[in-house]
Amino acid sequence: MAMRTVTFLPSYRKIEVARGTTILDAAQRAGLNMNVVCGGQGKCGKCIVFIQSGKAEFDSQKYGRFFSEEELQKGACLACETLVQGDLHVIIPENTLIQEQKILVAGQENPIELRPSVKKYYVELLPPTLSDPSPDLSRLLWGIQKSGGPVAEKMYAPLEVLREIPSVLRHSDWKVTATIALVPGGYRLIDLQENDTSKRVYGAAVDLGSTTIVVYLWDLLSGRTVSVASNYNRQISCGEDILARVNYARKNGLSRLQALAAESINQALTSASNTAGIDREDIYEVVVAGNTVMTHILLGIDPAYMIAEPYVPVVRRALSVAAGRIGITCNPNGGLFAFPAVSDFIGGDIIADILACHMAERDEISLLIDIGTNFEVVLGNKEWMFSCAGAAGPALEGGEVLFGMRANPGAIEKLTIDPDTLDPRYSTINGIKPRGICGSGLIDLLAELLTACVIDRTGRINTTIDNPRIRKTGHFPEYVVAWADETDIRKDIVITENDIKNLIMSKASVHAACVTLMKQAGVTHTEISTIYFAGAFGNYLDKKNATTIGLIPEIGFDQIKNIGNGAVAGANIALINRRARKTLDEIAYKIAYIELNAESSFMDEYTSSTFLPHTDLSLFPNVQKMLDACRIRKG
Amino acid sequence: MAMRTVTFLPSYRKIEVARGTTILDAAQRAGLNMNVVCGGQGKCGKCIVFIQSGKAEFDSQKYGRFFSEEELQKGACLACETLVQGDLHVIIPENTLIQEQKILVAGQENPIELRPSVKKYYVELLPPTLSDPSPDLSRLLWGIQKSGGPVAEKMYAPLEVLREIPSVLRHSDWKVTATIALVPGGYRLIDLQENDTSKRVYGAAVDLGSTTIVVYLWDLLSGRTVSVASNYNRQISCGEDILARVNYARKNGLSRLQALAAESINQALTSASNTAGIDREDIYEVVVAGNTVMTHILLGIDPAYMIAEPYVPVVRRALSVAAGRIGITCNPNGGLFAFPAVSDFIGGDIIADILACHMAERDEISLLIDIGTNFEVVLGNKEWMFSCAGAAGPALEGGEVLFGMRANPGAIEKLTIDPDTLDPRYSTINGIKPRGICGSGLIDLLAELLTACVIDRTGRINTTIDNPRIRKTGHFPEYVVAWADETDIRKDIVITENDIKNLIMSKASVHAACVTLMKQAGVTHTEISTIYFAGAFGNYLDKKNATTIGLIPEIGFDQIKNIGNGAVAGANIALINRRARKTLDEIAYKIAYIELNAESSFMDEYTSSTFLPHTDLSLFPNVQKMLDACRIRKG
Repeated sequence: MAMRTVTFLPSYRKIEVARGTTILDAAQRAGLNMNVVCGGQGKCGKCIVFIQSGKAEFDSQKYGRFFSEEELQKGACLACETLVQGDLHVIIPENTLIQEQKILVAGQENPIELRPSVKKYYVELLPPTLSDPSPDLSRLLWGIQKSGGPVAEKMYAPLEVLREIPSVLRHSDWKVTATIALVPGGYRLIDLQENDTSKRVYGAAVDLGSTTIVVYLWDLLSGRTVSVASNYNRQISCGEDILARVNYARKNGLSRLQALAAESINQALTSASNTAGIDREDIYEVVVAGNTVMTHILLGIDPAYMIAEPYVPVVRRALSVAAGRIGITCNPNGGLFAFPAVSDFIGGDIIADILACHMAERDEISLLIDIGTNFEVVLGNKEWMFSCAGAAGPALEGGEVLFGMRANPGAIEKLTIDPDTLDPRYSTINGIKPRGICGSGLIDLLAELLTACVIDRTGRINTTIDNPRIRKTGHFPEYVVAWADETDIRKDIVITENDIKNLIMSKASVHAACVTLMKQAGVTHTEISTIYFAGAFGNYLDKKNATTIGLIPEIGFDQIKNIGNGAVAGANIALINRRARKTLDEIAYKIAYIELNAESSFMDEYTSSTFLPHTDLSLFPNVQKMLDACRIRKG
Repeated sequence: MAMRTVTFLPSYRKIEVARGTTILDAAQRAGLNMNVVCGGQGKCGKCIVFIQSGKAEFDSQKYGRFFSEEELQKGACLACETLVQGDLHVIIPENTLIQEQKILVAGQENPIELRPSVKKYYVELLPPTLSDPSPDLSRLLWGIQKSGGPVAEKMYAPLEVLREIPSVLRHSDWKVTATIALVPGGYRLIDLQENDTSKRVYGAAVDLGSTTIVVYLWDLLSGRTVSVASNYNRQISCGEDILARVNYARKNGLSRLQALAAESINQALTSASNTAGIDREDIYEVVVAGNTVMTHILLGIDPAYMIAEPYVPVVRRALSVAAGRIGITCNPNGGLFAFPAVSDFIGGDIIADILACHMAERDEISLLIDIGTNFEVVLGNKEWMFSCAGAAGPALEGGEVLFGMRANPGAIEKLTIDPDTLDPRYSTINGIKPRGICGSGLIDLLAELLTACVIDRTGRINTTIDNPRIRKTGHFPEYVVAWADETDIRKDIVITENDIKNLIMSKASVHAACVTLMKQAGVTHTEISTIYFAGAFGNYLDKKNATTIGLIPEIGFDQIKNIGNGAVAGANIALINRRARKTLDEIAYKIAYIELNAESSFMDEYTSSTFLPHTDLSLFPNVQKMLDACRIRKG
C-alpha cells in the first residue's frame, strides 16, 4: 500500500495514511476531531480545510457552493470528500475543529450532594493461617466492612472478579483496593486491584443527543468534574434525523447504529480521559441521558415500533446494564445506567432536564421547555406533571429561513436594532464575520423588528418605510441584516417576510403547547413560578425577546431561567447522587403524556398564537405596554 | 480420510469413523457410554469389548493383565486402546456400558414441597393502540402479573431478553410464554417464547462427584423426576484423585479441567434429556452439589490454595451464576446454583447430605457419615453442628486389600459365613461370577469372621482352626472367600490378615472421628437419635455388621439410616424448593469445622478404635452380648 504523509497545520501534527484515504479520516487518526455534522457525506460543508501543498483529489465543481471564489483559490476543499494522493500540507481553520463548535457542555453548576453508587476501599488483610483459614472472599469482604464498607453479607462478587481474588490477594501481599457498586440485588464487588488505588475512581455522565454527545468526567471521590468532552453523534452518517436512522435500522439492522452510538460515546470518553490524564479503566460507571430512540439504539433494542402508530417503545423504565455488554469501553466490570422515559417522545433527556431544574421536588408550578427541531414541554410540580411534544419546524434552529444556520461559528447570535436608523448591532459566534443567523439571533431579530415597527403583529414588513435595509428584490419583502461586504459569505444577509412567517409558525406551536398543558392542568400563567429553558437554544436566548414575540407565556423575566444542557446536568446529578437516581422511575411514571394531535383545543391555541405575541394581548400585559410605548414613540 | 463402519453388538448401532479412531471414541459417538474409570488411559481395564470380526489394532501383550486367556481368545481388548483399522463388528458386554455400573442415582424419595425458583406464565396480551401505547415491557409484565405472576415492578428483563421482546410479541400475535426466575435482586424474565409453552419447564439437580456425576431431571411444573442419568467425571483423565487434579491445574491452568467438568455434566444432561424426550433449552435451572474443589473447578475458580497449608478456599458461600457462563448448555439464560461449603474439606456435597437427612431442622441430635476415600462426619441438630473430615484410607473402597475392588460388576457386595462349616454365602453386583470384594462385602466379611471366631478382636486369624478355607500360602494367614473355579478370574479370592489390618485402620479412623466430635459437643452415643450414612458406600452397608466391627458408635440398628446419594438428594430439594435453598448458607455458617490433626484426643480415640469393635466393649453392649453368645456356642 502506498503511504503518504499528511501534515496538519497549524499544529504540525503528522500522520501516515494510505493513498486514497480521505483527509477527514487522516485528521481523525491524527486526533483532530473535525466538525462533520453530516457524518462525512459531503452534505453539511462544515469540514473545510485548505490544501497548502501537495496533491489531493477533490471535485471543486460539485462542492463549489460551499466556498467563496477566494476560498477556492486558497485551496479550500471538504476534508470528507478529498482523497490524499501525495504528501500533503493541510491547513485546518480553527472553526473546522469540533472543539470550536458551540456544543453546549456546561450544565447546571449547583453543587450536588456526593453519594456515588461506586466506592473504593483500600484494605490491608491478615494472611490466612491454620488457625484462621477463612476463605479469600470472606476475608476480603470482612476487610471491606471493617474499612467502612457495606456489611459483608450484603456484598457479592460476580464470577469474573471472584476468579481474580486469590491471585490478586497473594500478589499484592494482601493489600488491595476493592471497588464496590450498589446495584439492584446488593453491593457488587466490581473490581479488585493490587495496592492502594482508592484515589482513582471516576464516573462519566453522558448526554446522548441525536446530533452531539457531551461527556462530563467526574472524580467520584472528590465529587468534582475533571474534564468535559463532546463529539458529534457518528450515527449521522446513517441519517440526519431520528426518523431516517430508525428507517436505516429497519432496512440494515440495528448493529451498525448501535456500534456507532457506542463508538461516539467511546471517543468522547477517550478525549475526556486524555484531557484529565486518567486511565479509562478507572471509569466505573457511565450514566446516559438520551431521547427514547437514542437510548433504545444504544442498548441494542429495536426502536422500529416508535415511529409508526401506535408509537410504542419497548421499554420506558431506567436500565442498568454492563457497559462492556453494549460496547462502552470503561472498566471491564463498569456499569451503565440509562435514564427512563415517559414515552417515545418524552425521553430520558427530558427526565434529566426535570432532575436538573428540580421542578419535581417543589410545590410551586414550573414550566420546562426544551426546543430543538422538536420541542418538549413539561408542566407541573412535585405532585403532578403533564407533558407534550411536537415538531417546532426547523425555523427556530435556522432551517426554512433563507440565511438561517445552526449555532456554528459565524452565526449571528445576538442582535439589536436602532429604532431610529433601523441599523442592527450584532455579535457572532466566535466573533468572525457573519455567515448567517442562528436561532437566538432570529428571536432577537423578530422582537427587534416588531418593537422598531418594521413588522406588524402578523409579521408583515412595512415596506412603506424609507430605509435601504427594507426592500423587495425577490418574491418577498425583506430586511437586510448585514451587507455583503461585512459578511464572510460576500452576500447580503437578509430576513424575508416568508422567513418571518415560518418563524411565527414555529413559535406558535411552542406557545400553543404550553397553553394546552396549562388548560389541561387548570393553571393560568400567573400561577407559574418559573419557566425553564433547556438545551442549546434556550441557553443563548434573550428572555425578554422570547416573551415579546410570544414564544412563551408572559411571566416576570426574572422567573425565566436557562438550565443549559439539562440532559447532561441531570445525568451529572444521577451519577453523583444515587438517591436522585432512585427517584427517576417515579418521576417518569408520574408524568402524564398529552398527545397534542388528539387535543382539539391545541389547534385553536395555535391559531391564536400566530400573532406577535398573541391575538389576546391581555395575556401579555408587559409586552402590550412596551409595544404601546414604541408605537407612541414612532408616532 | 479413510472412513470405516463400526457396528456395535448386541444393539447393532452403527457409526462411521475415520480409520485410527479408538473404539471408545466410536462408541461414544454412537451414543454408547462406556465404563472408563481412568478416563480412557488404558489403566482401569473397565472398557472391555470383543472384536467379533474385522481388523483392529490392539497391544494384547501390554494390556494382557486385564484378561483371562479365554477372553483374549474371544477377541477381548480395551476399547480405549484399540484403533479401528477396517470395518468392525464389536461386542460390548453389558458390564462395560456405564448404565450398568452401580452408580448410586437414587436419592431420598421423600416428597418435596414444590416451590421452584423458575416459573412459566402463558399470557395473551391486547396489542397496543393509540389510546393504550404503553411500552412492550410494561404490557408484558402487567400481563404476567395478571396471570398470577409477581408484581410487575419487581420483575426485570436482562438486555438479551429485552431485545427479543418486540419481535416475539408481534410474531406470536401477542400470545407468549414468559419464564420468570427468582434471583437475588428480584424476579428476572429469563425467556420469552411464542405461544403456549408453559408446560415445558425443567430443572436439573447435579451431584458433581470427583469420580461420577449424577443428574436428576425434574419437571418443575408437576414436581416430578422425568429422568435420571449418570456419567463418569471426565476430569479423571487429568488425575485420579482431587490432589492430582489440583496439581494438574497448577501446572497446566484450570481451563481444561473446567471444561471437562462442564462437558461431563453436559453429557449427563443430554442423556437425561434424551431419555425424557425434552429439549435441553427447556432446562432453566441447574443446581449443583459437589465437594469444594470440584465446585471451585466447575466455576473456574483456582482451587490451588486448598491443597497446601493453610488450606484456604476462595469462596464458601452459595453462588448463582449464568449456566452458559461456565459452559453448561441448557436454556441460554438458564441459571446455575452451586451449593455452599463449610471449608475445603466439608463441601457442598455434605451440605446437600444435611439437607437430604433434615438433621439441621430437628431438635434431636444426628450423626451424618459420608465415606469414600475420604470421610466426612457431621454431628448436631438445628441449634449447633460440628464437622470433621479425614482420610479413611482406600481399604473401605476396596483399595489396599488384595482382592478389594470398587462397586463394579462381579464385586461381592453381601456375605454371610456359616459359623459351623465356615463356608460363605455371597451375592455379587449384577449376579455374575465374583471378581473381587467391594466395601460393603468387606464389612460383612470382617463382621462374619469375627462372629464365627475366625478372627479375634485384634483382627488376627486363628490359624489353629482346621478348615481348608483357613491357610497360609503367602506372607500372611488368609481366609478363602471363593475358590478359583467359582470365580470369574480363575483365582482363589482370599482375605489376608494384612487386608484385615488395613480395614481395621480405616474403620478406626471413622469411629475415632465420630467420638472426637461427640466429645467436642459433650454428647454420648445414647444421646444420638439417628446415624445417617450418605454415599454409595453407606447405601449397600449392613447396619448390624457396621456396628459389629465398630465402624460407628453403637446405637439401635433401626436408628441407622441410609440416605443414599445425599448429594443429589439435597440438590433435588434445593432445585424443587427455593425456600430450602435459602437456608443453605445459614447451615454452612452454623457448622464448626474441627481439624482432627489438631485434636490430641483424636489419636487416643484412634488407638482405642483399632479393636473389633473397640477396646472398651461397654460402649458396644449389644455387640458384646452377641460376641459372648458366639463364643459360648463355639465352646
